[in-house]
Amino acid sequence: MTTSPPRVDADRASWIRQCFLDRRLVRVAGAHDGLTARIAEESGFDAVWASSFGISAAAGLPDLSLLGLAEYLAASTAMHRAVDIPVLADCDTGFGGSINAAYTMTQFEASGVAGICIEDKLFPKRNSFVAAGQQLLSAEEFAGKLQAASEARARPETLLIGRTEALICGEGVEEALRRCHLYVDAGADAVLIHSKAPGPEQVVEFLRHWQRRAPVVIVPTTYADWDSEEAAEAGVDMVIYANHALRAMVTAVRETWSTVLEHGSSATVEENIASVKEIFAISQLDAWLGKSR
Amino acid sequence: MTTSPPRVDADRASWIRQCFLDRRLVRVAGAHDGLTARIAEESGFDAVWASSFGISAAAGLPDLSLLGLAEYLAASTAMHRAVDIPVLADCDTGFGGSINAAYTMTQFEASGVAGICIEDKLFPKRNSFVAAGQQLLSAEEFAGKLQAASEARARPETLLIGRTEALICGEGVEEALRRCHLYVDAGADAVLIHSKAPGPEQVVEFLRHWQRRAPVVIVPTTYADWDSEEAAEAGVDMVIYANHALRAMVTAVRETWSTVLEHGSSATVEENIASVKEIFAISQLDAWLGKSR
Amino acid sequence: MTTSPPRVDADRASWIRQCFLDRRLVRVAGAHDGLTARIAEESGFDAVWASSFGISAAAGLPDLSLLGLAEYLAASTAMHRAVDIPVLADCDTGFGGSINAAYTMTQFEASGVAGICIEDKLFPKRNSFVAAGQQLLSAEEFAGKLQAASEARARPETLLIGRTEALICGEGVEEALRRCHLYVDAGADAVLIHSKAPGPEQVVEFLRHWQRRAPVVIVPTTYADWDSEEAAEAGVDMVIYANHALRAMVTAVRETWSTVLEHGSSATVEENIASVKEIFAISQLDAWLGKSR
Amino acid sequence: MTTSPPRVDADRASWIRQCFLDRRLVRVAGAHDGLTARIAEESGFDAVWASSFGISAAAGLPDLSLLGLAEYLAASTAMHRAVDIPVLADCDTGFGGSINAAYTMTQFEASGVAGICIEDKLFPKRNSFVAAGQQLLSAEEFAGKLQAASEARARPETLLIGRTEALICGEGVEEALRRCHLYVDAGADAVLIHSKAPGPEQVVEFLRHWQRRAPVVIVPTTYADWDSEEAAEAGVDMVIYANHALRAMVTAVRETWSTVLEHGSSATVEENIASVKEIFAISQLDAWLGKSR
Repeated sequence: MTTSPPRVDADRASWIRQCFLDRRLVRVAGAHDGLTARIAEESGFDAVWASSFGISAAAGLPDLSLLGLAEYLAASTAMHRAVDIPVLADCDTGFGGSINAAYTMTQFEASGVAGICIEDKLFPKRNSFVAAGQQLLSAEEFAGKLQAASEARARPETLLIGRTEALICGEGVEEALRRCHLYVDAGADAVLIHSKAPGPEQVVEFLRHWQRRAPVVIVPTTYADWDSEEAAEAGVDMVIYANHALRAMVTAVRETWSTVLEHGSSATVEENIASVKEIFAISQLDAWLGKSR
Repeated sequence: MTTSPPRVDADRASWIRQCFLDRRLVRVAGAHDGLTARIAEESGFDAVWASSFGISAAAGLPDLSLLGLAEYLAASTAMHRAVDIPVLADCDTGFGGSINAAYTMTQFEASGVAGICIEDKLFPKRNSFVAAGQQLLSAEEFAGKLQAASEARARPETLLIGRTEALICGEGVEEALRRCHLYVDAGADAVLIHSKAPGPEQVVEFLRHWQRRAPVVIVPTTYADWDSEEAAEAGVDMVIYANHALRAMVTAVRETWSTVLEHGSSATVEENIASVKEIFAISQLDAWLGKSR
Repeated sequence: MTTSPPRVDADRASWIRQCFLDRRLVRVAGAHDGLTARIAEESGFDAVWASSFGISAAAGLPDLSLLGLAEYLAASTAMHRAVDIPVLADCDTGFGGSINAAYTMTQFEASGVAGICIEDKLFPKRNSFVAAGQQLLSAEEFAGKLQAASEARARPETLLIGRTEALICGEGVEEALRRCHLYVDAGADAVLIHSKAPGPEQVVEFLRHWQRRAPVVIVPTTYADWDSEEAAEAGVDMVIYANHALRAMVTAVRETWSTVLEHGSSATVEENIASVKEIFAISQLDAWLGKSR
Repeated sequence: MTTSPPRVDADRASWIRQCFLDRRLVRVAGAHDGLTARIAEESGFDAVWASSFGISAAAGLPDLSLLGLAEYLAASTAMHRAVDIPVLADCDTGFGGSINAAYTMTQFEASGVAGICIEDKLFPKRNSFVAAGQQLLSAEEFAGKLQAASEARARPETLLIGRTEALICGEGVEEALRRCHLYVDAGADAVLIHSKAPGPEQVVEFLRHWQRRAPVVIVPTTYADWDSEEAAEAGVDMVIYANHALRAMVTAVRETWSTVLEHGSSATVEENIASVKEIFAISQLDAWLGKSR
């Protein structure tokens, strides 16, 4: 039986590997800073996705490869240090070619995160839900990037997820399968098959042919009503709810500010938002005060 | 008539000074990253408070002077670049003695923010709402820090706010007044009188004796139902809603994740949270795509 | 008559523009941190080149686009704040496509540097003196990047230098000229013509045909014995000694450590290295102590 | 027999502990970035001292606690990743009180460094060689900081060095001894006894009474001619040459730039400074190019 993940870096990565072996679905929440990572943890998620969409949006920027390795690394490290569960770092296209992919692995692994994910789009990439401008790198070149990243690992536990944007870029399931096989051959421990279809059919078809060759990760943003247990039965090993915290937050903050300005005071919102004490609690105030000597 | 604030750094600071001259209440929203700063701006706030409580909490840390100048500067700079309205940086106790206060001014001013605020507690400070351990620096020493910060300004527009924690530390209104007079003598452009009383009486008493010698800033966290127009009439020039975005966000994210995990999918929350397109919009996706040449 | 450059950000950039108008050769020293920038300034250089080669090497990394915008921006900002002379930021290929080039301009300009330089190689680029793997981007695409960067300027003074690696990549002077004309058309204020030939002949030929259409920058690393006055007469407006501080430093530190270890003490090296007091002086210790209040 | 230190984080710290057990003098070189750390390693030093004096000076700033935890952590992390030998981080006074000391330990340990050193001066501290303004914290308070830091360790190998500035602040050897005993009681693994006397007599006296209770570290800046073997025999376990690379570098860069400007070209200096190829080599260019796939 799998118990909760331990704090030590390598063990956090091993724990995800064990879930894969145990066919225990890994539920992952997208986060963009230490606080959202910690809310994910206390909510009961198994791991944190350090989302490039979220980290960019938190900076006030669109997800267009404007931020680079340093910014994602800083954000991922902050999340990793804020929680005990594993953090998986969304590393876009790997910040360049295969040498950059190797460098990416060394830097993120040294920061302690459980693993990284890189995707097979051309750099600079655009967020997968942007209508135009989605372009794939050749499968062979991307496999080279995965190989370089894989070989750069210092710890065997560190996870490398190869993400294909084949479906996003209008290619079919066959091409997605061809790519994912190449990616596992090149050293990926798991594949992320991204789809922006309104239903899970494409993903289901992929899974049927994939036959559990390696763990499969999905990001059901557009096919949100696919039940996670059903997904697990169909062959999914990890499901990432990538952007819901971000989206919930924007709505909540907008409503709060609008009410405050309308009423000329914050009295009306006080009841509906966390108290200052609750913020103290999630910031672990007492634990830190207890370190006083 | 005062119109909206312009983008140029010095002009953003001047605009706040003009509001003070015009007796136009400046409404300020606490934020902790570029995104929360931008929501404050689009909601109609006049300025952003780069809150030490918020920036610490976003990092997963309590507001105990664990973060320092560099982290606050990075966060404040990100907010400043994300918006057109002025950003006021909460600089805790000024990160050391008077030399540090001077350095703080040079660094934050160079980043473009409209001004900084420093407070008269002992370093390392604790958040004002932490029950124990609130200690004041001597008024004279703190005046020295304000003088050093004031003299370090390269632009005359840059704002320096002197914050007294006299009431927080159990001193009376008389001591708060004595301190604030010293602080304005030393170079502060405005004073922030902080109180954690359940009503505004202490602040009102302060204002009555202060007689508008210099602009007054308040942070009505505990006396939330004091109407801002009433406060303005009593002599308040700026009101900071310091932590409501943070608190709203924690509640919203918790509810979202709890629902997602309970239902095994995000279908139920989709209706209640901003869409991916709305995140694109607030991240200014189209403006950035439009820069393609 | 041109006097020394002032401290204000925009004025530093204007001062270089005035030198160009006055046909006064601008001598620039490569630096990689605040200290090497300050030594350049005290030595009498007109400006600092925030070198990607230097910044990478200081991090212990080769100049292969492993570092990105954030690291170069942090280093350039530190240099800018350490000196009064203008800082020109070496921005490699602009960290992506034209949208990234626009973002690069906004970020570096906001930091206060006098200008940026981007080059027409494929990302990820390799240092120009690396034998293999030098590849050019199409001239038209690179002109698009320059146009995007130019249009992103908030201050008209900010300099944009377009650098061609045509000669580095084995193209001839004709192609270099064609490119540089396109680059100036697209918004570059000056062109940098890089060459790794052992003599200045290629550059001289370029200058003869260029006929001072716009200011020309050179980096005479391999043709080190070309006298700068001669270069100025031939039509060069700015000469960058890009990597000599870095190279001098490596030699000096190696010799110092080797002597210390050999002798079992630092007694022998003390005479040949700056005293602790000299480090205090160049770190402006007394000026900072004088800020105490 | 002790062999060279391995790359894995915990092992680097253990290796220093083993040297202490073996009575093998640990020779440490002060560095301030990845490059100077790597030169220290290739020169044959056993470890790197991530010097606050050096890191501040590299930023163009005096060593007056202007930089904080974040800047030192970033610099130390860069050094740690650039070398295989252990890095010891000079953490000034621990960036606040005992809670800050605990936070300092968690952050630096997570970055992978072998250990940290904190000193018993009042914050904000001044460099020990600054004549005026040297003030000690009470021994009991500082012991509390060491205890908090010690208890915050996640790995038992991580080193905690307690540094006394008693002699720097005009106290005698007796007070230094009293303090160091308290510090070891509180959890320090080693003590650093700092002296700015022109000879080693004070330190020798300390060592005689200390009787090897715990490892002793010295920084022989002012008593530079004390032979390290002699020091080892007297009871010293680690000798730090803290600032010689920095000082050598300043002299070398000044001479280089002065020659370049005087001669109007870099031709004269080329022979005396490392070649571009040597910089490529120390930047590990070939190793990185070899990661291409």
